[in-house]
Amino acid sequence: MFENTFYSQEQHGPFEYFELGNFMLESGEILTDAKLAYAVHGKLNEAKDNAILMTIMFSGTSKHMEHYIGEGFALDPTKYCIILPNQLGNGLSTSPQNANEAQAMSRFPRLSIGDDVEAQYQLLTEHFGISELQLVTGWSMGAQQTYEWAIRYPDMVKRAVPIAGTARCTPHDRLYVEVFCEALKSDPAWENGEYKEPHACVAGLKRLARVFALMGCSTGFYKCEDWKRLGFENMQQFLTDFWEAWFLPTDPNVLLVLAEKWKNGDSSKHYKNNLKMALERITAITRVIAFEKDMFVPVEDCMYEQQFIVKSELEIIPSRMGHFSMLGCFGEDFSKIDSIYRDILSTNE
Amino acid sequence: MFENTFYSQEQHGPFEYFELGNFMLESGEILTDAKLAYAVHGKLNEAKDNAILMTIMFSGTSKHMEHYIGEGFALDPTKYCIILPNQLGNGLSTSPQNANEAQAMSRFPRLSIGDDVEAQYQLLTEHFGISELQLVTGWSMGAQQTYEWAIRYPDMVKRAVPIAGTARCTPHDRLYVEVFCEALKSDPAWENGEYKEPHACVAGLKRLARVFALMGCSTGFYKCEDWKRLGFENMQQFLTDFWEAWFLPTDPNVLLVLAEKWKNGDSSKHYKNNLKMALERITAITRVIAFEKDMFVPVEDCMYEQQFIVKSELEIIPSRMGHFSMLGCFGEDFSKIDSIYRDILSTNE
Repeated sequence: MFENTFYSQEQHGPFEYFELGNFMLESGEILTDAKLAYAVHGKLNEAKDNAILMTIMFSGTSKHMEHYIGEGFALDPTKYCIILPNQLGNGLSTSPQNANEAQAMSRFPRLSIGDDVEAQYQLLTEHFGISELQLVTGWSMGAQQTYEWAIRYPDMVKRAVPIAGTARCTPHDRLYVEVFCEALKSDPAWENGEYKEPHACVAGLKRLARVFALMGCSTGFYKCEDWKRLGFENMQQFLTDFWEAWFLPTDPNVLLVLAEKWKNGDSSKHYKNNLKMALERITAITRVIAFEKDMFVPVEDCMYEQQFIVKSELEIIPSRMGHFSMLGCFGEDFSKIDSIYRDILSTNE
Repeated sequence: MFENTFYSQEQHGPFEYFELGNFMLESGEILTDAKLAYAVHGKLNEAKDNAILMTIMFSGTSKHMEHYIGEGFALDPTKYCIILPNQLGNGLSTSPQNANEAQAMSRFPRLSIGDDVEAQYQLLTEHFGISELQLVTGWSMGAQQTYEWAIRYPDMVKRAVPIAGTARCTPHDRLYVEVFCEALKSDPAWENGEYKEPHACVAGLKRLARVFALMGCSTGFYKCEDWKRLGFENMQQFLTDFWEAWFLPTDPNVLLVLAEKWKNGDSSKHYKNNLKMALERITAITRVIAFEKDMFVPVEDCMYEQQFIVKSELEIIPSRMGHFSMLGCFGEDFSKIDSIYRDILSTNE
């Protein structure tokens, strides 16, 4: 076993650990000595009714959603207690590169979105004593967790904002996940998940980064040279200093464990695989956010699920940044999302 | 050198050869003993004014556009002489796997869309004695050739129907080409283009096929299980028996030579790189066809170029088949395209 110093307090902290112990997964397997890494902004009030849960996307950590949190923003830590649990397997929580030897690397068990929600439920109820969430929100795989929360614990989730994600992964999105996983796994250095050094799979990670660049931003983004707005001098620099720079420090097995979870995301599985029935369980006031140029989760895929949610509205944000509009690299995207949060938090039905 | 029996009269004929001799490429290099393979449907009339030119897409041959030709269709061989020239490098015309030893395999020269148009111009003028084309049309890389024709020889092209392609390849489309080329070239069996056996690169070609499946059909296509309409029993079968079956018989170097040409397509390069100036040269009556769900060449990219063409209209076809709507697998897509051909051929301004 080796250490990947990328997944550290220095890079992604401050975060804390909640001990899940030997944690039963939906698959029936036990994740031994499991830890859930989480960050908290703001303080839980005495009534314990000011909590917001913000879930995390593929390949990211709690650090990567923090820019939505701040005094003056909708997610205001002087008002709310905002809890950001890292996904199981994301590098900070128990993951292939930090698990006990028997479950490390290629031996790490398969996870589900439901596993995350159960681990988060334990954190919120056992550690914090929370029984009501003002808001659950998350982007992409974070939206998968948001849907799972709102379906599984409707009485606990007052409001939900799933962003550019689905309750059930679409066949096209699954194909996308398979394509980028194959781009990584075709690197001989991957060695079926038993690479000898954390940064061995450079070629595979670079290929994966290119696939993300292709599907992640729209044709208009590249045509209009929007990478200039992100501070890059040319497209090549954007491909290397943005996309490769994002993925090269990450752990290949972490990406693959998360990808498998993404691909198999299906919040209807405990409801007879009836997606409509599952979504109709949601009682939260819901704003579904879709990005107009999103190629991961096109507007039509968000709209299809939103129609089954009783108290819901669809918000379409027309950014050329596509799926990655959530990063808020463009001020107007950030402002729009912040204003949707502000609006829903002021709404009681 | 080996023979790839895929590129044969049996598989793609009947076709004929036009001898280009030692053919000067735009790069300045000479393609030695060059041959242009072409198919003809119908007869040239005495006035030589009933010719239609139909250009060919990436990875395909003249065989793959023939379904648009037939008695009763707009492209009626009892009325028109329809000529389908294969691209240089496409396996039938002079190509990496059939070139003289000095230019074979990885030594095959880089081609441009302009090279194709010059070769086709020689065929039409020298062999057929044609000075006017009733229509030039083509899909995808065929659209690149169509634009190049209409810009380079405006007096010769009376009507043009470029379909789901651009006069100048967009940055996003270039990125797409790079991603699928990398999917192929990362196969160790490719050996920098010097593979020992025509079908050695199975893993790379399968990866490339998956990238085409991802970008080629829309999310709605997969969600609605439209592959059923194509006769497949499940999505997996569609991925293997449609996409892999398409690419596995092809020659990797053929794909890469065509891809390089695709990526560098730019009909403005002889017009000071001014795309507007280039497109304003077109005097042909033009119908630009875009497919609504196309991820290779989204509607906005077609619309951007169409605005500069004087006598043009944009036709948007809403098929879930995306870029591959042109295959006409869905009867309604075929009928719509056929009706656009019929309409433009009846129009004189």
